[in-house]
Amino acid sequence: MASKNADLHGNVPDQCSVALVLIDVINDMEFDSGAALLENALPVARRLADLRRRAREAGVPVIYVNDNFGKWRSDFRRQLGHVLEDGVRGQPVAELLRPDEKDYFVLKAKHSGFYDTQLDLLIDHLKAKTLILAGFTTDICVLFTASDAYLRDLDIIVPTDCAAAANMEHHDRALEHMRRVLDVKAVLSTELDLAKLVGESTARAE
Amino acid sequence: MASKNADLHGNVPDQCSVALVLIDVINDMEFDSGAALLENALPVARRLADLRRRAREAGVPVIYVNDNFGKWRSDFRRQLGHVLEDGVRGQPVAELLRPDEKDYFVLKAKHSGFYDTQLDLLIDHLKAKTLILAGFTTDICVLFTASDAYLRDLDIIVPTDCAAAANMEHHDRALEHMRRVLDVKAVLSTELDLAKLVGESTARAE
Amino acid sequence: MASKNADLHGNVPDQCSVALVLIDVINDMEFDSGAALLENALPVARRLADLRRRAREAGVPVIYVNDNFGKWRSDFRRQLGHVLEDGVRGQPVAELLRPDEKDYFVLKAKHSGFYDTQLDLLIDHLKAKTLILAGFTTDICVLFTASDAYLRDLDIIVPTDCAAAANMEHHDRALEHMRRVLDVKAVLSTELDLAKLVGESTARAE
Amino acid sequence: MASKNADLHGNVPDQCSVALVLIDVINDMEFDSGAALLENALPVARRLADLRRRAREAGVPVIYVNDNFGKWRSDFRRQLGHVLEDGVRGQPVAELLRPDEKDYFVLKAKHSGFYDTQLDLLIDHLKAKTLILAGFTTDICVLFTASDAYLRDLDIIVPTDCAAAANMEHHDRALEHMRRVLDVKAVLSTELDLAKLVGESTARAE
Repeated sequence: MASKNADLHGNVPDQCSVALVLIDVINDMEFDSGAALLENALPVARRLADLRRRAREAGVPVIYVNDNFGKWRSDFRRQLGHVLEDGVRGQPVAELLRPDEKDYFVLKAKHSGFYDTQLDLLIDHLKAKTLILAGFTTDICVLFTASDAYLRDLDIIVPTDCAAAANMEHHDRALEHMRRVLDVKAVLSTELDLAKLVGESTARAE
Repeated sequence: MASKNADLHGNVPDQCSVALVLIDVINDMEFDSGAALLENALPVARRLADLRRRAREAGVPVIYVNDNFGKWRSDFRRQLGHVLEDGVRGQPVAELLRPDEKDYFVLKAKHSGFYDTQLDLLIDHLKAKTLILAGFTTDICVLFTASDAYLRDLDIIVPTDCAAAANMEHHDRALEHMRRVLDVKAVLSTELDLAKLVGESTARAE
Repeated sequence: MASKNADLHGNVPDQCSVALVLIDVINDMEFDSGAALLENALPVARRLADLRRRAREAGVPVIYVNDNFGKWRSDFRRQLGHVLEDGVRGQPVAELLRPDEKDYFVLKAKHSGFYDTQLDLLIDHLKAKTLILAGFTTDICVLFTASDAYLRDLDIIVPTDCAAAANMEHHDRALEHMRRVLDVKAVLSTELDLAKLVGESTARAE
Repeated sequence: MASKNADLHGNVPDQCSVALVLIDVINDMEFDSGAALLENALPVARRLADLRRRAREAGVPVIYVNDNFGKWRSDFRRQLGHVLEDGVRGQPVAELLRPDEKDYFVLKAKHSGFYDTQLDLLIDHLKAKTLILAGFTTDICVLFTASDAYLRDLDIIVPTDCAAAANMEHHDRALEHMRRVLDVKAVLSTELDLAKLVGESTARAE
């Protein structure tokens, strides 16, 4: 039903059994390993922009889960303005992945997207059972968030070409750990059939 | 130290043992009991604006804890824009209590300011031990938030003239319950000496 | 299905859309208002023993949610031993409501049965959507637990003759608050048809 | 003060800045990789028994954080009885690490010791700031618990010879991850000076 509505009207529906979660993609990358991360993150951002477009077409809601980076008085739009306008390293990634009016966003203050945030309630609101986790970095915030998703019995997919770390060996090891311990399905984004995923995830939930 | 910095520089410091929490003051009041609430809320908002000014002078941080009112794609600034610009009932209250750049804000999706929000982490960040809870409505969101603050062993003050409900009998009963069960200090805002409170709360924490 | 199994085999099934939650019924009542509470609690315990028997017959699981009363090294069975064997005030209540092998129990350290306890996970495990809350005291731990159940979108029933407080005026006001603010169905235990409740709650969840 | 009391009276004090957390050491190991785990776990249990004895001498409280292994009606003592008396694989480990009256215990239903358990409240009660995490398995429950401890800004020590996994390569990689991402101090148990740790951790907290 979700994807049918989306086909007809181009609207992102309020409920869908699958959600695409973009972790820390709006990020100035002005830290020590930021240059190394940017090199790995830029090709990821291009593929992720494509996955985000396909999610939109399939009626899969997109959730930006983003660190407040210690700026407790800020909000997500201000964070976005900073990364787009202040000449920081992360600007080209943010330009590729700029959210629009239909996207959801959740601010986190710690590494896990679930820790003292509204993500649990938003997932309940959307009735999502499967999370596609992508973004930066695979071995830190993506892994923390995947671990917490696993504790909540959610199905987890990490498209291996839509996440990165400053050191890609850490990326590989984190994926290996997530596959083995967290039952994460880690495949190329091009192998994901989002409409089929929505159908399967909805069927499992019923 | 907190209040000294504030005296010297007019800055709200990042840490203070006391915080003023304004609950659901940015609120369109476009619901059934909204007209009744507005009548009680408007004089409260005037007194609360004064308390907020005194908090600022004493170096006490101000936290807006506000419902997202089911608008999951919105944020606090957009919520504020809606209440200030769309000709809704709650506009005069929002005009009196409009936040500025130095204030903190936390979005909640449920009645308690603590439930799946960043409030716990923000309180840790500020090192606050005493919360002054104010806003609307005394018997619902203020009471839910006070109950959760009590579970966390925080000291709680509710200035009785800075909170309201649509029905003031419910306001009175909620205050009575908070006094008796949650050890809430419920006094007139004019009886609060904020600088003294900061000193006492800091001393207890050490 | 749940109630059918129970009819055939007398087993409490692992899953049921309704659960009966007994709050702080294993309680030595050795505190200031304990004598007043006991006087009100003893007739409640007799009715609650009957409701518990009917829950068992209808395949409704029974969960004891009990305070650790500051004894961090204790567990529920030891707590039970203390109340049954040490000649304390709460002994006659505990004798009427002694749990057996089929009951579940959750220790809490604070007033709400949900705060940093396993109750959320147990409710998920049971797939319960409706909680029947009973026990002591109506205005403190029952109210705290009902408030947290409401935040979790659970349906709540409080049988008015199966809960008590030291002061029955506080009991009455808490029930009034729960009815008005938490959508609690507050009726006599004799008006509850448990088999019908299970059917209705299961149907709503599907 | 904590260690002084312990020296004088042999009591474990109620408060200490350091706590020793034993994860899933009471475990029947009756699962696929249980035989492999037992082989690695038995020498660990001997060293851990020694560390536990030293913790007791230094006034450091010992907390057993143990899975309920899906037995929702069970408690920790019953779990202990099962592992000691039913002729299961994990019996020799449980015999070496049998808790006594002075130990604390927390039941968990999921992999992290913090997820919907009383561990947060117990740590607050003890005023612990540094956790020594040990037990099984390094790459699953120890890692989950360490990740959640890191989110809570606790200092974490994992004695490398007091934890194990079925596959020791997974143990090594988990330690490497914990060192790099979670700021875990991972050293041999023989290098830990518990009295000194208590002093340092207490000083940092003041």
